[in-house]
Amino acid sequence: MSETTSGVLDAETLTLALKDCPGWTEASGPAITKSFKFKTFVEAFSFMTQVALLAEKAGHHPDWSNSYNTVDIALSTHSKGGVTENDIALARKINGLPGA
Amino acid sequence: MSETTSGVLDAETLTLALKDCPGWTEASGPAITKSFKFKTFVEAFSFMTQVALLAEKAGHHPDWSNSYNTVDIALSTHSKGGVTENDIALARKINGLPGA
Amino acid sequence: MSETTSGVLDAETLTLALKDCPGWTEASGPAITKSFKFKTFVEAFSFMTQVALLAEKAGHHPDWSNSYNTVDIALSTHSKGGVTENDIALARKINGLPGA
Amino acid sequence: MSETTSGVLDAETLTLALKDCPGWTEASGPAITKSFKFKTFVEAFSFMTQVALLAEKAGHHPDWSNSYNTVDIALSTHSKGGVTENDIALARKINGLPGA
Repeated sequence: MSETTSGVLDAETLTLALKDCPGWTEASGPAITKSFKFKTFVEAFSFMTQVALLAEKAGHHPDWSNSYNTVDIALSTHSKGGVTENDIALARKINGLPGA
Repeated sequence: MSETTSGVLDAETLTLALKDCPGWTEASGPAITKSFKFKTFVEAFSFMTQVALLAEKAGHHPDWSNSYNTVDIALSTHSKGGVTENDIALARKINGLPGA
Repeated sequence: MSETTSGVLDAETLTLALKDCPGWTEASGPAITKSFKFKTFVEAFSFMTQVALLAEKAGHHPDWSNSYNTVDIALSTHSKGGVTENDIALARKINGLPGA
Repeated sequence: MSETTSGVLDAETLTLALKDCPGWTEASGPAITKSFKFKTFVEAFSFMTQVALLAEKAGHHPDWSNSYNTVDIALSTHSKGGVTENDIALARKINGLPGA
């Protein structure tokens, strides 16, 4: 079975799903996380703007932090208490951004 | 004396400076931090865009995180290992933003 | 009848709809337009970021220009060759933004 | 002589300067302009965010417009009534952005 009744992905399904999300790993929370590095703050914040546009459109928002040229993103579905298909879908979209 | 030879503000000066920066408090790092809350992600990210523009102009960037409608900002001068006048100046500018 | 078969609002309906959209007026195109003025470029661009987030979410994007503290927005539905309910809906959302 | 007393570049100097600014051309105003095309609105607005950060840092702002995936930028120095070194400098920085 691919997910629990709540929509949270079970361990096996999550591991499988992450194989299609290069760079994303499981983290406590639980959540999936990835760290992105850029040349400058300008590039980092421009990337964040793209992620913000994707996230608002999806109605699904990241927990993220930025320090100069580094952007760390964590995705989880707070209302479900874990990682769902929505997180995987957003991770894939973020990976598809130019510069990601 | 208001600062050490490195430009880092001493404890007394920092305490005094923060009296003019409502909402900012000392934190480990050392750094100064403030948490901002908005109605929506759209308002929160728009605020972040303003801060990004101020920061890039000042050549002095925050360590910050966002989760939906909350933005947590920490300011310190990494190269000096502490809080300097540059952090106080950016904190004041951030406080002056509409919606802050 | 409130709209043509194509979804474009007829003259009477458009006039009525704009009564609920303070500041928006009919323009050639046809389109509806509004000019927004801010104190600084930082405030203007932050407003644009909010509009961008709304627009991407709605899948309906403005034709707009910016010069320092001024943002001019035109809304129309290109695929229909006129102003539709989608334009009115986005105009209302833009008017609801803080600082608009 | 490379510029008039007001700082506005004379015709010959401007022509020469534009040779180092691929894609930028002279336009009425006078100004220099370039049109940028992207795959999506998200990429276009992310590019605009980078330009906004550069412009605010330089204290020199574009006259620009956006329609979905197209961004048209015009640069001139309003206070001087023409194109100055500041416009050339900003054009070069914009050309250096990833995705430009």
